[in-house]
Amino acid sequence: MSIRKFVTPEIIFGQGALSQIGDSAARSGASKVFVVTDQGLIEAGWVDKALHYLRTAGLEYEIFSSITSNPKDFEVAEGVTHYLRSRCDALVAVGGGSPADTAKAIAMLATNGGELQDYEGVNRIRHPLPPMVIVPSTAGTGSEVSQFAIIVDHQRRLKMSIISKSLIPDIAIIDPDLLNTKPPRLAAATGIDALSHAIESYVSLAATPLTDIHALNAIRLIFGNLKRSVFDRHDAEANNNMAMASLNAGIAFSNAILGAGHAMTHQIDGLLDTHHGETNATLLPHVMQFNLPECRQKFTQIARQIEASATDQDRCEDLSEQAIEAVRRLTRDIGLHKSLADVGLKKESIKTLSQNALNDACLVTNPRNATAEDIEQLFLKAF
Amino acid sequence: MSIRKFVTPEIIFGQGALSQIGDSAARSGASKVFVVTDQGLIEAGWVDKALHYLRTAGLEYEIFSSITSNPKDFEVAEGVTHYLRSRCDALVAVGGGSPADTAKAIAMLATNGGELQDYEGVNRIRHPLPPMVIVPSTAGTGSEVSQFAIIVDHQRRLKMSIISKSLIPDIAIIDPDLLNTKPPRLAAATGIDALSHAIESYVSLAATPLTDIHALNAIRLIFGNLKRSVFDRHDAEANNNMAMASLNAGIAFSNAILGAGHAMTHQIDGLLDTHHGETNATLLPHVMQFNLPECRQKFTQIARQIEASATDQDRCEDLSEQAIEAVRRLTRDIGLHKSLADVGLKKESIKTLSQNALNDACLVTNPRNATAEDIEQLFLKAF
Ligand SMILES: [Fe+2]
Ligand SMILES: [Fe+2]
Repeated sequence: MSIRKFVTPEIIFGQGALSQIGDSAARSGASKVFVVTDQGLIEAGWVDKALHYLRTAGLEYEIFSSITSNPKDFEVAEGVTHYLRSRCDALVAVGGGSPADTAKAIAMLATNGGELQDYEGVNRIRHPLPPMVIVPSTAGTGSEVSQFAIIVDHQRRLKMSIISKSLIPDIAIIDPDLLNTKPPRLAAATGIDALSHAIESYVSLAATPLTDIHALNAIRLIFGNLKRSVFDRHDAEANNNMAMASLNAGIAFSNAILGAGHAMTHQIDGLLDTHHGETNATLLPHVMQFNLPECRQKFTQIARQIEASATDQDRCEDLSEQAIEAVRRLTRDIGLHKSLADVGLKKESIKTLSQNALNDACLVTNPRNATAEDIEQLFLKAF
Repeated sequence: MSIRKFVTPEIIFGQGALSQIGDSAARSGASKVFVVTDQGLIEAGWVDKALHYLRTAGLEYEIFSSITSNPKDFEVAEGVTHYLRSRCDALVAVGGGSPADTAKAIAMLATNGGELQDYEGVNRIRHPLPPMVIVPSTAGTGSEVSQFAIIVDHQRRLKMSIISKSLIPDIAIIDPDLLNTKPPRLAAATGIDALSHAIESYVSLAATPLTDIHALNAIRLIFGNLKRSVFDRHDAEANNNMAMASLNAGIAFSNAILGAGHAMTHQIDGLLDTHHGETNATLLPHVMQFNLPECRQKFTQIARQIEASATDQDRCEDLSEQAIEAVRRLTRDIGLHKSLADVGLKKESIKTLSQNALNDACLVTNPRNATAEDIEQLFLKAF
C-alpha cells in the first residue's frame, strides 16, 4: 500500500436536504451567492425553492443559467465576467454535472485568472477558491463530492479534465427529491455514468481499500435500483438509493480517479455534444473486456455484488466475465445499448479521438496499459 | 431517511505516511507546532522521526507529553497554559487516543476559553480551532477522524464526552508502521475498542447508509485480523488491516455516534482509570444482548461479515445471536474476557455509575431505550 489521500467535502443528505442550502452557504462564509443552474431546474421549480432558502438565510444572490449539457469554455468565460461584475463572494450550483462543473470552473478562473486550458490535468490550481455549495439534481455526475471539473474546449472539440483538491466544494447537499423531475432517459444515462464511475474507480491503479468500499456499494445499489428508478420516476426508495449510489461512486472516483472509458468518452462528448452517460453506456462493456486480463479478481467481486440481479442468461463460465455481461444487459434493459455509430460518430474521426484520449488524465490510472492502437480498436469495437 | 451530515477530515494513509506530517502541518497554516504525545511514543522513536519531518518542513515546535492513559481535565489545563505560553499556532498529536483527545481539548480551550465542563455534550464550541493534524499509533481510538474528545473530570470521576464538528482535525495521517511498537495487550484492547465503535455506530439510531458501509467494513477487518495482529505484532498485513479497520470504525462512529456501551465504559474508565478497550470488552457482549430485540436484522448482517471466522461452536439458532457469540469468543481468544469485578469495580459503585451513564451523550443514539434500572442490570450482568 503506497501513501494515498482521501478527501470528501462535508456531505448533507436526505429527502428535503435542499432546505439546508441557505444555512450551508452562510456558514461557508457567503454574503452574496452566485447561483449556477439551468433552464430545466428553473422550470421544475427547484431554483425558486433554493432561492427561498437563500433569502431566509439573509443572503443576496445572482442567477446564472446560460449553460448547455456539456459545458463549454466560452460559457464559463461568460460566467466569470458575470460573477466578477455581480460582486458575489460564493457559488452555489443546483443541477446536474453541467452547473456543478461550470460553477467550479468559474470559481477557479475568478480567483486564479488565466484560461481554462492552463489548468488542464492534475493539481494546477494555486490560490484558494471562494466557498462552494453543490446540490446535484441527477444521480450520476458525482461532481458534488469530486475534485474534477470537465469542460469542453470548443476549438479542439474535446473535454478537458481539470483535477485538483481545490475543486472539492465546501458542502455537498444531496436531496433525492430533486430526482423526481428528471426524465427517464436522463435517469438512465446518468445512472450508467455513475456505474462507470464506480467500476472504473474500483479497478483504477489508484484504488485503495477506502475507495473500494464506496465503489462496490455504488455498484450494488445501481444494479438493485437503476431499472426501477428509470421505469418509475416517482419510486422514492429507488431514487434515494440511486442518489446514494451516485454519491458513493463520486467519493470513489474523486479519490481513485477513473480509466480508459472516461478518457474516451471525454473525446466523443466534446466532438458530438452527446450525453456523457449515453456515451459511457456504449463504451463501458468494451473497456471492461479490454481490462479483463488485469482485473479478473476485482470483476469477480463486482459480479458478487450484482449476483442478486443476475439471471441464467448472464451466467458465463467465470464470474469475472459475468460482470461484463451484467453491465451489457443493464444498458440494454434501460434502452442505452447503442453503438457509437448510433450516437452519431463518423468512422474517420476515430484516429484523432484515439490520439487525443492518450492525453486525458483519466488514462493514467487505467488498470491495463493502453496504446493509441488499443484505444482505436476499442472505438472500432463499440462502433 | 432524515437529513443527516457526514464529515471526515482529509485522510492520508499508508506505510510511511508519518513522513507527511511536516508538509501537512505547514499547508494547514502552522508555523510553530504544539506536539502532544506520550512517553511510550518518545521511547519508541516515533516522536524523533516526527520532529525531523516538522523541521524539514521549516516548522518550529514545542513538545507536551505529561499525559496519562485516560487524559484528565487538569492535564488539559496544564497543556493550555503551556500552549499559550509557547506561542504555538497549531497542534499535532502523535499517539493513541489520549494525546489525540488532549490535543483537541487544548485547541478548544485555548481559542474558546472557559472550562472543559462548559463544552460537555453536543455542539457547544463557538470559535474556530487552530489547525490540527493527528497521527494515531494505536488501531482503536478513531479520534484522528472523529468529532469526539473524551476527557476525565477528576472531581466527578467520570469521562466527559465533548462532541463537535470543530474537533475533527484538518488532516489525519494513518501510518500502520506505528503499530509495530504497540505491546500485545494494548493491541488487543484497542482492537476491541475499534470493534465497539463499529458495532455501536452500526446499530446507532443515527446510522446512515454512508456510515453503515464503513462500520461493516471495520467489523469484517477486525474479525479477520485482530487475532493475528495481537499474536504477531510485526505482521504487516494484519497491522495494515487493523489500521484500516480503526479508521473505518472512526468514520462510522464520528458520524453515527455510539450507544449504551460507551455511555457505560466512560463511567468506569473515569472511576477506575482502567483501559477503555478492556472495559469495552467486558461490556460489549452484554450490551449487544440487551439491544438484540431492536437489532436482529443488523446483527444478522454483522454475523455475515464475520462468517468466515466463525466455528461450529459459534453457531446459534439464529444468525443475530451468532454475532454476539462471535464477539464473546473474540474477546476470549485475545485474553480480554474479564468481568467488571476482575477490572476492579466494586458492586456498591454501580448505582451511581448507572445514574451518571444516563447523562452521557452516547446513550441518546442507543437503539433500545435504556433506563437507569436497565443500565444497572447490564452492569450487574458484566460484574
Ligand atoms: Fe462521468
Ligand atoms: Fe471507544
